[in-house]
Amino acid sequence: MSVAQIGEFGLIDRVTARLAHGPATLLGPGDDAAVIAAPDGRVAASTDVLVEGRHFRRDWGSARDIGHRAAAANLADIAAMGGSPTALLVALCMPPELDPGWAEELADGLAAEAATVGAGVVGGDMSASPTLTIAVTALGDLGGRPPVTRSGARPGDVVALAGRIGHAAAGLTVLSRGFRTPRLLVEAYRRPEVPYAAGPQAAQLGATSMIDVSDGLVADLGHVARASGVGIDVRRDAFEVPRQMRDAAQALGADPYTWILGGGEDHALVASFPPEVALPPQWRPIGRVVDGSGVTVDGEPYAGPAGWDHFR
Amino acid sequence: MSVAQIGEFGLIDRVTARLAHGPATLLGPGDDAAVIAAPDGRVAASTDVLVEGRHFRRDWGSARDIGHRAAAANLADIAAMGGSPTALLVALCMPPELDPGWAEELADGLAAEAATVGAGVVGGDMSASPTLTIAVTALGDLGGRPPVTRSGARPGDVVALAGRIGHAAAGLTVLSRGFRTPRLLVEAYRRPEVPYAAGPQAAQLGATSMIDVSDGLVADLGHVARASGVGIDVRRDAFEVPRQMRDAAQALGADPYTWILGGGEDHALVASFPPEVALPPQWRPIGRVVDGSGVTVDGEPYAGPAGWDHFR
Repeated sequence: MSVAQIGEFGLIDRVTARLAHGPATLLGPGDDAAVIAAPDGRVAASTDVLVEGRHFRRDWGSARDIGHRAAAANLADIAAMGGSPTALLVALCMPPELDPGWAEELADGLAAEAATVGAGVVGGDMSASPTLTIAVTALGDLGGRPPVTRSGARPGDVVALAGRIGHAAAGLTVLSRGFRTPRLLVEAYRRPEVPYAAGPQAAQLGATSMIDVSDGLVADLGHVARASGVGIDVRRDAFEVPRQMRDAAQALGADPYTWILGGGEDHALVASFPPEVALPPQWRPIGRVVDGSGVTVDGEPYAGPAGWDHFR
Repeated sequence: MSVAQIGEFGLIDRVTARLAHGPATLLGPGDDAAVIAAPDGRVAASTDVLVEGRHFRRDWGSARDIGHRAAAANLADIAAMGGSPTALLVALCMPPELDPGWAEELADGLAAEAATVGAGVVGGDMSASPTLTIAVTALGDLGGRPPVTRSGARPGDVVALAGRIGHAAAGLTVLSRGFRTPRLLVEAYRRPEVPYAAGPQAAQLGATSMIDVSDGLVADLGHVARASGVGIDVRRDAFEVPRQMRDAAQALGADPYTWILGGGEDHALVASFPPEVALPPQWRPIGRVVDGSGVTVDGEPYAGPAGWDHFR
């Protein structure tokens, strides 16, 4: 069976039948547009695209895993503004010979990840394409607060991190060398565990800037430093290197800090806070905002690979 | 020069520099998410994807034309709910060897089409891909009115059409046979003229159902008939066949009604209205909602090609 055999409308019916509505879904899939609640009169919106061979490989995770990852990448962007995700829309481009079961499992993964934050998959589009491509748009609610942008970091602010870091990058290295363990790292790559609730929490605590770590910690803090007109110094000893990561690094001849400082896709949240803010335990201080520009590690320029450019 | 040479962030900078904000844009491109006004506490949202070779060809129109078409397809979905578009988000997947100027002109076309309805291009994503792919999400405001869905048509309602029909399909046939004229038809394919304002107008007039004609008139009315549990009969003599379309049909040995009844992508709006509604001139009656199921033309089953399945 292929998606070409059941056709566009057949596949849309099969996929939408698997999607649950979120509480904000006023009108779900099946019409020209969906309608989603935007209780404070604003909506936060972000789009990310995943292309097979660049952002995922079908042999490195199940369709369901890829659905989780695609949803997480977008939902994390809403959290990084201090928002709560309400809805996803998904454009799916598939080779006509693809098994429709793959698309159904992808939808299950997207819907399951969205459901962890109470969001629904409310709409989308499908097309045949030689290249399997998943473009996801996430919508979210800011709860009446100003969005937490990249541009508000001020010298003296504490830089803190919520969520795991380096795990997904380590898992990707493990997979790309043909291994399937350690499980902690491989699973972190397949299904990021995003600290969604820490986003609105940071906004409530008075975060001055926030971003989700998708390109790599140093690269993403570089976006914050540039947008805010400040420098950021990160302390290497702020990061715990779990045993499995240390073992994998040793086995593969890698430096775990390359994963921690340069690897993305865990979708950790990193934010700056005024120094007087008492940080709850899920926000671990990792550095300081300073006068100047750029990102340093222990006061030195960072020499490792800084992040990922999707055209290079 | 290629997009690979200037890189992801370089291209994002070049493209976003060309985008104007709409009045609903509270926070534009450059952060983890955009923030858009949703004045009535709801947002209408729709996603459409265009794949090179399936939905467009680079030799059949300029990048700017393709931007207009991609935006129009999505903006029309918001209008078809009775809404006013507020914002577009765009995921663009490009072969690394593509000229960055092509992406910039595409952005110009997207922004120009959005600007015709006061919407801004507020965010997006870019990636390299072997297949040039444009996924657009449109957001819109319903002005405090209920959305006009596909499911409210009732027997006795008048079916009326706003906008051009068959022009884009005729233009596509002309282009696919290697011609570049008649200009009216070719331009209609390259840049659909969508009657955006007729969408909210229909909602205000009390339309019971509405859809935009993207798959083909009979196919799209079929969606309405199925969702509403009714039949729809269309009168062939309700459609004016312009001279250029008649001439092109004769020259190509085609039936112009195949374009009018089966061709999509003009993004005309078709709606049903209670019979007592006085229709303004831009809404031309073309048929009736009846008891039963399916779509008929002059009381007979329609034998022509009904529409387009993107997997076949």
